[in-house]
Amino acid sequence: MSSLKETRLSTERIYKGRLLDVWKDKVELPDGKSSYREFIKHPGAVVIIPVLPDGKIGLIRQYRYPMGMEQIELPAGKLDESESHLVTAGRELEEEIGYKAGSLTEVTEIHPCIGYSDERMWIYLAEQLEVTKTNTDQDEFIELMPTELEEAVEMVWSGKITDVKTIIGILWAHRLLH
Amino acid sequence: MSSLKETRLSTERIYKGRLLDVWKDKVELPDGKSSYREFIKHPGAVVIIPVLPDGKIGLIRQYRYPMGMEQIELPAGKLDESESHLVTAGRELEEEIGYKAGSLTEVTEIHPCIGYSDERMWIYLAEQLEVTKTNTDQDEFIELMPTELEEAVEMVWSGKITDVKTIIGILWAHRLLH
Repeated sequence: MSSLKETRLSTERIYKGRLLDVWKDKVELPDGKSSYREFIKHPGAVVIIPVLPDGKIGLIRQYRYPMGMEQIELPAGKLDESESHLVTAGRELEEEIGYKAGSLTEVTEIHPCIGYSDERMWIYLAEQLEVTKTNTDQDEFIELMPTELEEAVEMVWSGKITDVKTIIGILWAHRLLH
Repeated sequence: MSSLKETRLSTERIYKGRLLDVWKDKVELPDGKSSYREFIKHPGAVVIIPVLPDGKIGLIRQYRYPMGMEQIELPAGKLDESESHLVTAGRELEEEIGYKAGSLTEVTEIHPCIGYSDERMWIYLAEQLEVTKTNTDQDEFIELMPTELEEAVEMVWSGKITDVKTIIGILWAHRLLH
């Protein structure tokens, strides 16, 4: 019963690519006028805080084409309709850094891009890790960067880590593990 | 000289709407193969942490159509080519909550959506606020929600605040002002 709510009047798919699904809706505003909202429909994603066997955090480094630069990140991956969040988290962890988790705990849910995307992200703490052989994501080039938690926190406050899911995941890890 | 870099081979604009500017580039991957990258070009944005005259933080509540829900946020707004970041921060603060800032300090830069957008956000701490009469953004329906900093931090850790720029801004405010 919100006075701020916007109500859909009509909807139109603008573009469906391999990654992006772009929509344009006509909406009724709270004052009865109408406007348009353009946004991305996203399947959602999981973010994983991997606590490696030596206690370091399994950060990764990868090139992010939209930004035109490498970014230091936590492993993450898009949800797959056929999988639970937990299964996706375990799979992405193994695909991206080659570890299986004995324990995966949901930490929080965040919304990265509420102005133009419906993406939701669920952050998981991954513990009791065991190395596996598989590290074989197609089309992804990733370097594992094991980092002491205190150093990762310092990289947040110094501005060296700028990716939002990674900032929030590291600060949560500090809260939970410190 | 990064081994992870992806190089543009060609570029194509997919859609230019009122808000979204969607591109699809063909890229060369580090292994010499090619792939496609779809992404949003975004002008960038400022986020403002308003410290109200009574010391509370000027959070706002607004309906976010892509999410289908109200969100608790810090004031923010897109950059305008003709303005400096600082001018945009001051203007958006006044437009969204009706205060002028005597002091605006850049806190950090964050990247909300590196998988499919080039958006950069600059967070500013706004202090020495004075109320003005103007609160007149067209097409925006916003409720001011003055909140004690400690309560805002609790809303982050309890999961009540899920918007990433707001989570990070509040934790920075706690670090700077606590």
